[in-house]
Formats: sequence, C-alpha cells, structure tokens
Amino acid sequence: MDIEWDNTTHATKIDPAKPLPSDLEPLTGTDLVIVGGSDGVTAENTLETIEAIDASFPDLPIFQEPYRSDHVSTETIDAVDYLSIAAVYNGDREHFVGKHVDLFAEVGQKPDELLGSSVPLIGDLVASKGIDAVANLTEKVIGEGYVIQHLSSAAANRAGVEAAYSPEQVAGAALATESLYGFPIFYVEYSGTYGGPEDVQAAARYLEDTALFYGGGIDSAAKADEILAAGADAIVVGDCFHDDPETFRETIPNR
Amino acid sequence: MDIEWDNTTHATKIDPAKPLPSDLEPLTGTDLVIVGGSDGVTAENTLETIEAIDASFPDLPIFQEPYRSDHVSTETIDAVDYLSIAAVYNGDREHFVGKHVDLFAEVGQKPDELLGSSVPLIGDLVASKGIDAVANLTEKVIGEGYVIQHLSSAAANRAGVEAAYSPEQVAGAALATESLYGFPIFYVEYSGTYGGPEDVQAAARYLEDTALFYGGGIDSAAKADEILAAGADAIVVGDCFHDDPETFRETIPNR
Repeated sequence: MDIEWDNTTHATKIDPAKPLPSDLEPLTGTDLVIVGGSDGVTAENTLETIEAIDASFPDLPIFQEPYRSDHVSTETIDAVDYLSIAAVYNGDREHFVGKHVDLFAEVGQKPDELLGSSVPLIGDLVASKGIDAVANLTEKVIGEGYVIQHLSSAAANRAGVEAAYSPEQVAGAALATESLYGFPIFYVEYSGTYGGPEDVQAAARYLEDTALFYGGGIDSAAKADEILAAGADAIVVGDCFHDDPETFRETIPNR
Repeated sequence: MDIEWDNTTHATKIDPAKPLPSDLEPLTGTDLVIVGGSDGVTAENTLETIEAIDASFPDLPIFQEPYRSDHVSTETIDAVDYLSIAAVYNGDREHFVGKHVDLFAEVGQKPDELLGSSVPLIGDLVASKGIDAVANLTEKVIGEGYVIQHLSSAAANRAGVEAAYSPEQVAGAALATESLYGFPIFYVEYSGTYGGPEDVQAAARYLEDTALFYGGGIDSAAKADEILAAGADAIVVGDCFHDDPETFRETIPNR
C-alpha cells in the first residue's frame, strides 16, 4: 500500500515486549502504528501485537521497525504494510549501513545455502518461496533516516551515537535524505525526552518529498501542536500509549 | 535531463588533473562522460575539461564526480547534467555518510552565515541565488553506491576500505541499494585492475531499477564484452582514454 503522508499526522509506536493495554480504543484517531523495540522483542510477540491491532483496526497502516533480523519472520512481513529500517545519521557505521548490508547479503544468498541460516527469516523465506520472496520482501522495505538527539537514551547508546547534531547538521542530514539517500522518512528522535521544535524547523525547510517525523516526550496537546506547527508531518507517540491512555488521547490532533 | 540507462553501455572517466588528448574523436561512441579525480583536481581544471568535451560533443551527458567540495563551483554545477556523489559501502563511515552530511549541512546553512564559507560553492551559490539555488543543486545530485574492490588502489586507501567484499556481500550491497538507499547507480570499482565478471554477476541478479556500473582494468573488447555479458549496464573506462586511444576505441561496444 502507499501511505498517504498528507493524512498521517499522528503515529503510535508500540513496543511488543510490553503488554498491550486491554482497551485499544485510544488508537482511534492515530494514523499509523509502528511496532518495534529492542529488549525482550521477538518475532512472536511482534506478530501477536500486529495481529491484535489489525483485528481491532483493520484499516490502520502498520509498520514493523525491527532492531535485529530475528525480530522479523515471514509472518511479520506478511502481516505489515512496511518493514521500516532505521539508518542513524549520527550513529556509528554499523547503524547507518553496516548491519543493513549484512542483512541484505543474507537475504540475497541462494536458498540452498540458507537452510541453516541463523536468521529465521531468511532460511524460511528463501527456501519456501525463492527469489520472488526476496523481491516481495524488498518491496516492503522502506528506509528511515534517523537523527537520535537524546544522548543518554538506550536508543543512542545502541546506535553508537556520540554527539547530538546541531540544528545545522540536522538540516544537512535532512537535505542529504531528500537529495542523496532518498529515504521516504526523516525522523528526529528525542527518545523519552521532549526536544522542542528547533530541529524540526531546521529540517522542515529542506524537505519536500520526504515525510518528517518527530518522536520523544510528547505528552500533551500543546507539545503535539508545537511540533506539528514547526513543520513535522507526523508526531510519534510511544510511552504513554502503554500506561496513560488519557495523556495519549490528548496527543491526537483534533481534525 | 534524465539519463537513458538503456542506451548507456560505455562511460568514460576523465581525470581533469591530466591533460586532455589533443584529439577527442575517440569519445565518439561513448555514452557518458564522468569527470573527476583526486590529486591535482580543482574546480577550474574540472570546468575546463567539461567545457572542452561539451564543445566537441554537445549531446553527450556529463557527470561531475567530485571527491571534495572544493572541486565544485556554481560553474561546474551549471555545466554538467548531474553531480554524482560516491557512497562507499565498504569504506569508513566518513565515505558513506559523514562527509556527505557535512556537505549538505554547509549547503543548507543560511546565506548570511555562508559568505565566509570555506566551500566556494556554498558561499557564492547561496549568497547569489538563495534557497532556489539549493533546490537546483540538490536536483542535480545523484548518489552512486560504490564497492571498491582493489585494496591497494588510491581510491580504496582514500575511502578507508579495509577489506574487499565477497560476491555475497556485493550482492547484499546491491540489494540494499535497490531496496533501501535508492541510489540510481551501483558501481563495482576495481580501480586500475581487472576484477572479472563474478561481482557483476552477483550484483546483477538483484538490480532492477538501479543501473550497474563496472570500472577497472578494461583494456580490450573481450573484457568489455565479458563484463557486459555478466549483467553490467555500463562499463567505465578511464586510464587508457588519456594515453592509449587505440585501446580505448576497442572498449567501445559495437552496436
């Protein structure tokens, strides 16, 4: 499916390692769900999460944002609209390009060499469906150009981020996304803290074809409005979805 | 202009730091000229080279492939069809993403902060033409996903390449280009030595929208044919253009 970015202003990031709220009704009004996390995530709990959301909201687009290849299975790929791969501009080489090439090198290998693969995805996928499955997989892949700005976050630590970018560097990474790398999404990630509108303003100036996402610390309508007014196409709200449905509801823009 | 990749099977790489042959007639039959180099290259000798080629072959597409930002000027940008930026998969972080973000960060900065820029391009361009010029520049930028396979070459040394890729890794980088990074060109570079068809075969299997270039050591019709038969869209011929026109002519496929 093609995502209608013009109608995507609110995304919900759901960690499959955390229990889903018993009542999913607060998701009414969000435009996109991104399923992903790190510690405790498996392909199985990812699939369960995707299926539960899809059962209640069959028209809601769902991305899987895997951190490792073993978070992905043929079932999760079939169940989602897109597999979004984060490339971290201010991270280490591994998290911008290294691990992605490793993944695709596994994907690209011949079926008979893959039956013993340590990547469950690959062995199953290629053995059962061959090269067409590789083509299907790669059609579902989209890249997200990330800048991780909260240095003491787990996300920054995992991605080898040693320094936050200045607004000028954020703008440069945005322009590089738009012009050179061509990822459909540029993502300013403040992971767990509120970063304010400055980076979003800096990036928005140079993005035309690229959707601009902001995530981190949005826990009120005022913060949601501030980031959207600064030029973000969509805000991403995560933490409060799991534990504070009233706050979560406040972050959904009125339309 | 849009490049017609279907009709591009032979590209000529010209180093502006070397004197152009007095007779440019051997370029008849090449489909694309790529102007770029490292030692001794300046924006001025780049422009002279581009202008000399364009005067003799006004319909021949010309790329500038700059190694450093001071190889680029408003004049070189205006004179070429595309500014091609090499991202080296098996190089260091700097040569896949770091220096590109730095460049775009300079490009993106505000005109009044750029008058004293160390990058001639940027100060002139943005000061004289403003944000529209930035948009024009970025429309001319295309990425090339490189794999540099000749470890003792100057190119490998400059880009921080510590290991050549196996054919499986080349295939992975090709698939990552096609699916994730979206560069229009994937380039297998053997810089000065002939690498044979194996990497090209490995990459070609997974490239549909991406043009596959091979460069390195092509000095006969047989080698040209072997690489094209292995699935390359285009061979890139460099060294012999400058010093051995008869050999250069042999590398141009008969059509």
